[in-house]
Amino acid sequence: MPEEAEPIVQHFNLAHQPSYFGQLPPKAYKGLYNHLDILLVVNGRDKLHDVDLVGTQPATLAALLAIEKFSPDLIINAGTAGAFGANGASIGDVYLSNRHFIFHDRRIPIPGWDSFGVGRYPSFDTSEIAAALGLKQGIITTGNSLDMPAEDERTIRENGGEIKDMEGAAFAWVASLYGTPIFSIKAITDLMDSEKTTQEEFLQNLHKASIALKEACYSVIDYIAVKKEL
Amino acid sequence: MPEEAEPIVQHFNLAHQPSYFGQLPPKAYKGLYNHLDILLVVNGRDKLHDVDLVGTQPATLAALLAIEKFSPDLIINAGTAGAFGANGASIGDVYLSNRHFIFHDRRIPIPGWDSFGVGRYPSFDTSEIAAALGLKQGIITTGNSLDMPAEDERTIRENGGEIKDMEGAAFAWVASLYGTPIFSIKAITDLMDSEKTTQEEFLQNLHKASIALKEACYSVIDYIAVKKEL
Repeated sequence: MPEEAEPIVQHFNLAHQPSYFGQLPPKAYKGLYNHLDILLVVNGRDKLHDVDLVGTQPATLAALLAIEKFSPDLIINAGTAGAFGANGASIGDVYLSNRHFIFHDRRIPIPGWDSFGVGRYPSFDTSEIAAALGLKQGIITTGNSLDMPAEDERTIRENGGEIKDMEGAAFAWVASLYGTPIFSIKAITDLMDSEKTTQEEFLQNLHKASIALKEACYSVIDYIAVKKEL
Repeated sequence: MPEEAEPIVQHFNLAHQPSYFGQLPPKAYKGLYNHLDILLVVNGRDKLHDVDLVGTQPATLAALLAIEKFSPDLIINAGTAGAFGANGASIGDVYLSNRHFIFHDRRIPIPGWDSFGVGRYPSFDTSEIAAALGLKQGIITTGNSLDMPAEDERTIRENGGEIKDMEGAAFAWVASLYGTPIFSIKAITDLMDSEKTTQEEFLQNLHKASIALKEACYSVIDYIAVKKEL
């Protein structure tokens, strides 16, 4: 979202590219930082409802446009997410995606499609970065709703989903079509096994999580820039 | 899906365009029929799971690619769907979309986003075509699962959803970004208020519904071709 993107745009001195995606909603910011060509893309606004676009359909659109236009060597999906306190997560923790991305709201109980529904699109192996920077790792599980009804929770638990977001698996699916490596950086705004609703916790903790997210983004980019130099 | 597309490709004498979308999954078939330039697009295959791509993420991708490449005057989304027997629907009935398309699995209870979640992206007014061809009309409601948990059913009933599919609202959202008119033709494979599961009914009735779907597609295209001549 723009509030999460703004400090990153400033920090890396990225310039807005107003015509990059024509009249479509995603917005692009571009720059050169420590020999890395960086393109930052946000999903943009929904004009009909006057809110920032969230969820897997806008993520699919933004990923396709960004890859077609920029042909990135690596995609980093940065954002906020929920996690399970029982797994040791706290508000403001930062996780990197691990192993693969799953969908938890695509239930298609027909052989073949059941597995497609879950997705399991690969994540770049973040073990080295996570260890170097002291970040946690978890399997991202994606769906289009803030809540977690029993049907979604079953899929999450059966497939080891740890970090619940609204975009990751859609980005990972599109990236998989191009063979482009992808991983996520997710700062935790809410604990799914707490008493409060996700929307309460999300709004309460967004500021704290956004600060943790941007610091992690800076460290990860610096880490990659140094690795590239070696 | 390919089984539903094949008779339509034959009937309108459309030619496969192997390189139309590069290495991406959607497949394109093109031809000229009664002075209408027709492009038929199917979502294509998921290589990882070896099934046809279904749901809103592949629909978003296919819609974007098709519009960018072909700039259609009108989009018709043809497929199968569920409906409510209590609303008078029977297996094999054909519906045209009406008023707008809604999503029933995007619950975001934060002001502004709650309304975005439902979507309500506009449908082309099909009243004239429906009356002329004796087809039914209904509001399409879209989600990524075959089942209908209580959370989804509430959204469907609160928003007058009648025809439950897995792609319509995603196509309508992308079409709305370009201001391209869109409507759906949906043949009913299952009744959501019957005793059987959607997957049982879907597999049982797919053949019957596919025949009804293709006949409706022929009639609708003929109707549009004649209208265009006038």
